[in-house]
Amino acid sequence: MPGTTALRQPQDVRPRMPALPREVLPHLKELERFLEEQIETFEPQLRELVRYVFASHGKRIRPTLVFCSGCTEDGRILAEHVHAAAVVELIHLATLVHDDVLDGAALRHQLPTVGRKYGAPVAVLLGDALFAQALIIAADYLNVEVYRTMALASRRVCAGEIHQTLERGNPRFSVNEYFEVLSLKTGELFSVSCLLGARLAGRDDDYVEAVARFGMQLGIAYQIFDDIADFWGDEDQIGKTLGTDLASGKFTLPLLCLIERLPENEAAEVRRDVLAGLANVKDLAARMTRHGVLAAVRERFESELRAGENALSPWLGLTPTNRLLELAGYVRGQLARVAG
Amino acid sequence: MPGTTALRQPQDVRPRMPALPREVLPHLKELERFLEEQIETFEPQLRELVRYVFASHGKRIRPTLVFCSGCTEDGRILAEHVHAAAVVELIHLATLVHDDVLDGAALRHQLPTVGRKYGAPVAVLLGDALFAQALIIAADYLNVEVYRTMALASRRVCAGEIHQTLERGNPRFSVNEYFEVLSLKTGELFSVSCLLGARLAGRDDDYVEAVARFGMQLGIAYQIFDDIADFWGDEDQIGKTLGTDLASGKFTLPLLCLIERLPENEAAEVRRDVLAGLANVKDLAARMTRHGVLAAVRERFESELRAGENALSPWLGLTPTNRLLELAGYVRGQLARVAG
Repeated sequence: MPGTTALRQPQDVRPRMPALPREVLPHLKELERFLEEQIETFEPQLRELVRYVFASHGKRIRPTLVFCSGCTEDGRILAEHVHAAAVVELIHLATLVHDDVLDGAALRHQLPTVGRKYGAPVAVLLGDALFAQALIIAADYLNVEVYRTMALASRRVCAGEIHQTLERGNPRFSVNEYFEVLSLKTGELFSVSCLLGARLAGRDDDYVEAVARFGMQLGIAYQIFDDIADFWGDEDQIGKTLGTDLASGKFTLPLLCLIERLPENEAAEVRRDVLAGLANVKDLAARMTRHGVLAAVRERFESELRAGENALSPWLGLTPTNRLLELAGYVRGQLARVAG
Repeated sequence: MPGTTALRQPQDVRPRMPALPREVLPHLKELERFLEEQIETFEPQLRELVRYVFASHGKRIRPTLVFCSGCTEDGRILAEHVHAAAVVELIHLATLVHDDVLDGAALRHQLPTVGRKYGAPVAVLLGDALFAQALIIAADYLNVEVYRTMALASRRVCAGEIHQTLERGNPRFSVNEYFEVLSLKTGELFSVSCLLGARLAGRDDDYVEAVARFGMQLGIAYQIFDDIADFWGDEDQIGKTLGTDLASGKFTLPLLCLIERLPENEAAEVRRDVLAGLANVKDLAARMTRHGVLAAVRERFESELRAGENALSPWLGLTPTNRLLELAGYVRGQLARVAG
């Protein structure tokens, strides 16, 4: 650490690139190997497509949660943790592939989305196949509680997304409803990732409940970060087109906060523009900054994240607790880089 | 029976309305009750949508397969058969909801499709939720073998559909490849319906294998019937717009057979028209009839169905065999009504 600081130039005030807890890196490599092996188990028609989705991968934050919450006191994990991590990641990838179709997104992690490259029908079907594969792995390697939990979590993710979709354009869609949607569409999968990790490691119910709560809060904070990145991010850094949510008419937290702060006529105008696809992301972001929206949203991010950290406070000495808190720090660092 | 014949007028040469084996009707009612109860277990955001999909229901042919193959010698079924039937039907409904979006279909069983009524994004997400629910029921009520079988069958259905989609417009797409697609996209779910029924009833491996083979062949025959109905059906009877497959550029068996029979230049023209969405269903149907396509396709239907019936021939005395053969007769009767 001191070495890194010494190398930094004084004018470099940008926060240091946040990193995942380094102890999970070997586990993430095991996961990649396992996912790579999975490709051959798909029908020949699917392999190229699955390989494409696996290659364009993100930060594997949900598997990281499984590994952090699932490690023993001396930092080891079980083979089941790799399998559970594969299940949550595949479900996540399935929802991403579908989301990109629904949003008409062009890029994901710097590459054309499946929908753009192979067409929307293939993307819908491939998402289905990835989801099926997640449950096949759950049935092959894990127990009934795990595969039941995963199927239920998937339904809850869909419920959140459907709520958001049905409310698209509803002028009465509130910040409270927004948080209900978040807890389903993002919090749920973060939460079960933590829950499964701890459960498979044989932790007691209180701890399992605490890490599940932590995961839920981290997921909510992470989605707020994602919303912020959609307005203030750097396309190269976030790997997708800025304003994707805005373009698809999603009323995310920054937008809802801005609307709350505007006089009724201006608020109505913003709503109309967003729904008509006429809203400009840079203009809106500047307007939000002027109205203190960025500060308010960052504050909410911080309070959600802190609630997650607090859920772990009775277990501060444990190794998984330390790793999960490190991960919370990572997410905090990501936000600082985008909107420090 | 004689009474029915006596009531019929001499000029009524149309075959009698085919019916499902009447012994399964009470089981289908149990299934409806079980599905109805499921609605309340969905998140509030999903209930109206799920109710809509359940209401616009079809013939429940896959559950019927579970009930036929799963009955004891004195015709009873187990509670597990109702649960397994719900699982296969939900997976089927999920694929229907997705297919209708991909095809841009307007009607399904006389009602607007989910995509038309609630928008394509909701339809994609609802399909996901129905699939998740199928696996939740499998986890709650059935064993890991059932769960695994269903997840695997779902992936195979997707593989078939993706193959079909990727080959849309490929002039070299052959009748052989068409049958490969069919066995995955339709045969698979028919086959596992039979397999699960017999397995849950405790039948031995030979019989389970035989009913699975029967299901595969019945599924293939059924899809050929569906292809025929897309050209020669009666919209009121089949409950959806004629030429839906044609309009979405699918090269179904009748079309592939016509193309095989035409001189190269005419074949190329038909291909171009279909891909450009310029093909007229009535014109093509008339042309097919002239070239003996309908007769050839009906012959293929009959040979596939007969192969299924033959798979059961070593077990002619068993009650489930009788019911399955009755069901084959039902499908044969359906074809006779459309293209007798």
